Amino acid sequence: MSDRTEFLTLADPDAVRETIAQFDLGGDTETVPLAEAQGLVLAERVDADLAVPGFDRASMDGYAVRATDTVGASEAAPTVLEIVDEVHAGEEPDADVDPMTAVEVSTGAVMPAGADAVVMVERTSRRESDVAIRTTVTPGDHVMPAGDDVAPGERALGPGTVVTNREIGLLAALGRETVAVRDRPRVAVVSTGDELVSLGDDLHPERGEIYDVNGQSIAAAVRDAGGEPAVYPTVGDDTAEMKRVLREAAADCDLVTTSGATSAGAVDVLSEVIADGGEQLHHGVAIKPGKPTLVARLDGAPFVGLPGYPVSALSVFRTLVAPAIREAAGRPPLERPERRAELSEDVHYDEGRHRLLPVGLVTDGAGGTLAYPVDKGSGATTTLTNADGIVEMAAETSLLEAGTAVTVALFGTDVRPPRLFGVGEADPALWDLLDGVPRTRFLAVGSAEGDRRLADGVPDVAVVTGDDEGAAGTPLGGWTREWGIVVAPDTAAAAGIDGLAALVDGDWRFVNQGRSGLRDAFDAALDDLAAERDATRGELVNAIDGAQRTAPGHEGPARRVAAGDADAGLALRATAEELDMGFVSLGHQSVEVRVNPDRVDKPGVADLRAALADAPATVGDVPGVSWDG
Amino acid sequence: MSDRTEFLTLADPDAVRETIAQFDLGGDTETVPLAEAQGLVLAERVDADLAVPGFDRASMDGYAVRATDTVGASEAAPTVLEIVDEVHAGEEPDADVDPMTAVEVSTGAVMPAGADAVVMVERTSRRESDVAIRTTVTPGDHVMPAGDDVAPGERALGPGTVVTNREIGLLAALGRETVAVRDRPRVAVVSTGDELVSLGDDLHPERGEIYDVNGQSIAAAVRDAGGEPAVYPTVGDDTAEMKRVLREAAADCDLVTTSGATSAGAVDVLSEVIADGGEQLHHGVAIKPGKPTLVARLDGAPFVGLPGYPVSALSVFRTLVAPAIREAAGRPPLERPERRAELSEDVHYDEGRHRLLPVGLVTDGAGGTLAYPVDKGSGATTTLTNADGIVEMAAETSLLEAGTAVTVALFGTDVRPPRLFGVGEADPALWDLLDGVPRTRFLAVGSAEGDRRLADGVPDVAVVTGDDEGAAGTPLGGWTREWGIVVAPDTAAAAGIDGLAALVDGDWRFVNQGRSGLRDAFDAALDDLAAERDATRGELVNAIDGAQRTAPGHEGPARRVAAGDADAGLALRATAEELDMGFVSLGHQSVEVRVNPDRVDKPGVADLRAALADAPATVGDVPGVSWDG
Repeated sequence: MSDRTEFLTLADPDAVRETIAQFDLGGDTETVPLAEAQGLVLAERVDADLAVPGFDRASMDGYAVRATDTVGASEAAPTVLEIVDEVHAGEEPDADVDPMTAVEVSTGAVMPAGADAVVMVERTSRRESDVAIRTTVTPGDHVMPAGDDVAPGERALGPGTVVTNREIGLLAALGRETVAVRDRPRVAVVSTGDELVSLGDDLHPERGEIYDVNGQSIAAAVRDAGGEPAVYPTVGDDTAEMKRVLREAAADCDLVTTSGATSAGAVDVLSEVIADGGEQLHHGVAIKPGKPTLVARLDGAPFVGLPGYPVSALSVFRTLVAPAIREAAGRPPLERPERRAELSEDVHYDEGRHRLLPVGLVTDGAGGTLAYPVDKGSGATTTLTNADGIVEMAAETSLLEAGTAVTVALFGTDVRPPRLFGVGEADPALWDLLDGVPRTRFLAVGSAEGDRRLADGVPDVAVVTGDDEGAAGTPLGGWTREWGIVVAPDTAAAAGIDGLAALVDGDWRFVNQGRSGLRDAFDAALDDLAAERDATRGELVNAIDGAQRTAPGHEGPARRVAAGDADAGLALRATAEELDMGFVSLGHQSVEVRVNPDRVDKPGVADLRAALADAPATVGDVPGVSWDG
Repeated sequence: MSDRTEFLTLADPDAVRETIAQFDLGGDTETVPLAEAQGLVLAERVDADLAVPGFDRASMDGYAVRATDTVGASEAAPTVLEIVDEVHAGEEPDADVDPMTAVEVSTGAVMPAGADAVVMVERTSRRESDVAIRTTVTPGDHVMPAGDDVAPGERALGPGTVVTNREIGLLAALGRETVAVRDRPRVAVVSTGDELVSLGDDLHPERGEIYDVNGQSIAAAVRDAGGEPAVYPTVGDDTAEMKRVLREAAADCDLVTTSGATSAGAVDVLSEVIADGGEQLHHGVAIKPGKPTLVARLDGAPFVGLPGYPVSALSVFRTLVAPAIREAAGRPPLERPERRAELSEDVHYDEGRHRLLPVGLVTDGAGGTLAYPVDKGSGATTTLTNADGIVEMAAETSLLEAGTAVTVALFGTDVRPPRLFGVGEADPALWDLLDGVPRTRFLAVGSAEGDRRLADGVPDVAVVTGDDEGAAGTPLGGWTREWGIVVAPDTAAAAGIDGLAALVDGDWRFVNQGRSGLRDAFDAALDDLAAERDATRGELVNAIDGAQRTAPGHEGPARRVAAGDADAGLALRATAEELDMGFVSLGHQSVEVRVNPDRVDKPGVADLRAALADAPATVGDVPGVSWDG
């Protein structure tokens, strides 16, 4: 890692979007069967080549007549006509309608020669071979003339029309088996990085391996934009290999995208490939996330190097690349669905780049919408799934204050705020409970942080452990859970640890929980033991190898023990039983769902209240858990 | 057609929707590869089975250090550390970071043991095997701890989550090769009627044949709702055949739909099939269009018999059936996109059914939206493609006055008013011109009707022929077209007709145009000839066999002549040349595009103005046409 390329000048995002918009991304025409045209865009005008309907058509069940024969007919004074024929839909009439005769017709039947109107059956009475007509009709009544829907030679659909079920109906009526549609631009999706592992392969975290995220998510975003993704195998940071793959992609696709290998420290390989027969157009965009984006031509093919972080890659793709793919696919520009919301907290920013701030949405008690920043960093995939859209902050904006009205560009037309938004303690009984509460978002931030956020008024509910004195919100219901020490079965630890004292006094490698209600229970038990022994908690902590060592997630310590990395860990009974491990109970702790006082009547809260009440029956037994009430 | 079933009582649409909602439409689970899950709905909760990231990860290029070693370091007083190793993403660290040492790391690299922070490269200076650290860092700086994105055991995604590109990213990060999703309900689509012809087969209009429209359009609507259509071959009105097909469909599908065969005159066959082992639940719904809808159980399978008319079938499907399919597919209820608009004209209605009125939209000059009724009847497929959505009228509403503010339920999230809305004369030069004006809707209603509608202020432009005295709107540009009599080449008519007088004096079978500017030109020429001969136009008309016989569309008469049904027809030179026919010129007529004075600045009008100016170059030669200006 010798030279490190700095981003000396960052390009304006609009300029980069414009460069990409100028790329020729194909836009060829292909002919597809009508059934496969749904969602595609007509490449050509469709003129009608036949009349629809192709004949004067009866549009009611009834009798085809000469209108003049019905003049004066009424309920009181019917006119009687002789029935000379019967024509159903799909039949050719045998007889003409001469004066004072009628032909029985079904809806859709060809009008017999001579007839110029249909009397609907409800206004007639049949008597053997005669029919009494009880109303007067005028020429054209209940008849659809040939070509009235579409006349031959007329412009039926213009080029650029998006084919929906309605256009499919019209094209079928015109007898079109196939239609010419705009070809989907073919977009190469190449994930780069020595650390990437393909789905299905074994992962070795100890050497920094991660599953390839961008290959799948960018491919899906390509499809959303109307393109056809071509996903290539991941490529490491090897110049020859990179060159081979990118050249193949450039030859086969209308646009080549990579992810990764664009940051200052890693761009050398990519730059070398571009330098050899390509042209770099931009490297570095004044947008956050997305700074290291690289735009180039590669063997003549348009090339966009996306950043490696999933959030950055998807944001840049959506913002700068997708519009060009939509345009090439012939789709009208996306009218991005938006929602007005009130910002829940101050957002500071001073890097001078156009910022795309991911936010989650929650509807408040008064029907308004709050937007709260969701930013675990661009390296976190949950930043995207926990957000509903983006608030754009201009480069010169350094502060958006809490309470500011903002426009949220939603991630999709179907996106709306979750029905229930909860935060707080992770808990397996809660997971089961939430399965019965549709469209819930829950952020496992621990009890204390959950309580803090509920006090700030953003979430609908917080799930907190322990004593509820001073806790924010009002109680909605809860349960009690059993916690203790997890050990691998049939080990020395399993034999030797029978309680907290044994953990303190023995020589065991322990893994603790991070900040959480579960950790609070453990600390409180240490306090009790310290008091018994006339010691301090700190002294006991120092006596336990690993009391300061934590593993993320409520299952984390148990999984470390299961993997043989430790002898004992802090866990719930439910986790121990799920993982088939030994368990030493240290106590029970209450878990309570507390609700934002402004949101008690919100439908999602009502769903959760009902789910809590039904939990003993619907969720049933969770090891170590007893439901309240 | 002996007994005719009357709809004695019509069911309330809400009751019918509820009956269909109660059907069990499947909702099974299937496991699909991640790449195929896009747009589907998770059937199960996804808990994280691994930590993401699986290791403490450097989130910047730079140097992994012990934060304590950097205390006091600054630009002015750097701290120098010994570089003991270099770790790239995807590598396992070889060396630990002992006091006063550092390891060079790339973004994404595993943090070496001993290090607790990363100093970003921009704040360092390398000197051979040493690095000068020019800033103080604190533990955790630029490090993403293992499990910080997702911790093992945490609830990653709830059941019922729609899988978008963002969820695909998270699922990939979790290493999920496959996911369990809600199965798409399988929906049988059976079109019924002896008159139906499948796409690709020959059509015989003389015996009332039409192409099957519903098979294609309902199948597309099933897909839109999240179902999987199974399109069966069309079935005629034969009880045994209908029974066989419907039983097969009932055995194979979660829901059986038919179209057609539900009207009073045709329902007998369907009723007989249902009576044999099924149960009829509703027949007749108080909705327009859609009255003859039939809901039943058929061999235990849910069954909906849709009306045969395309507009009715699609409306009923969308309104009453699609919600149940969405629900069974696990999709959240559709938030129907809506648009407020002002009704352009009075709408009268007194049949006492809940009415779904198709309307087209046009934006007016002030940025408002006008909704105009589009109702060529349920039998017309263009009713759907020329409309943008539906205005619902309650059963008890008999009048909606022009100017009423109405809510238009758009047909889809992508639907918006056309960029340009024109009406008036059909013309092949116009068709070519409009190909260059994106997102145009044009209704070929003829010159006089086009002028009337423009005078009423609804369309943006009208295309009218002839003298512009008294015409509505202001001129935008136009062209001149040549018209005359079309004859088949090498026929007696081709030899015998050399002008209008020959047509009047000879014994030819003629086909005229319907009401249009072209017909006006012909009538004016007849007036001139009548004046020459001191006769009346009526006398000349009576002398021409077929002067009152019309064929729909500006190509209609020429096509009749080409088919051998007549000797001569009224047509444009452009049509004659397109169809390779003989042509006797009778004159030239001007065609003018006139614009609504309130809309001159509308972008679509600007597009058309530009297209008109460029027409000589872009459209070029159209036989018989000379562009103005």
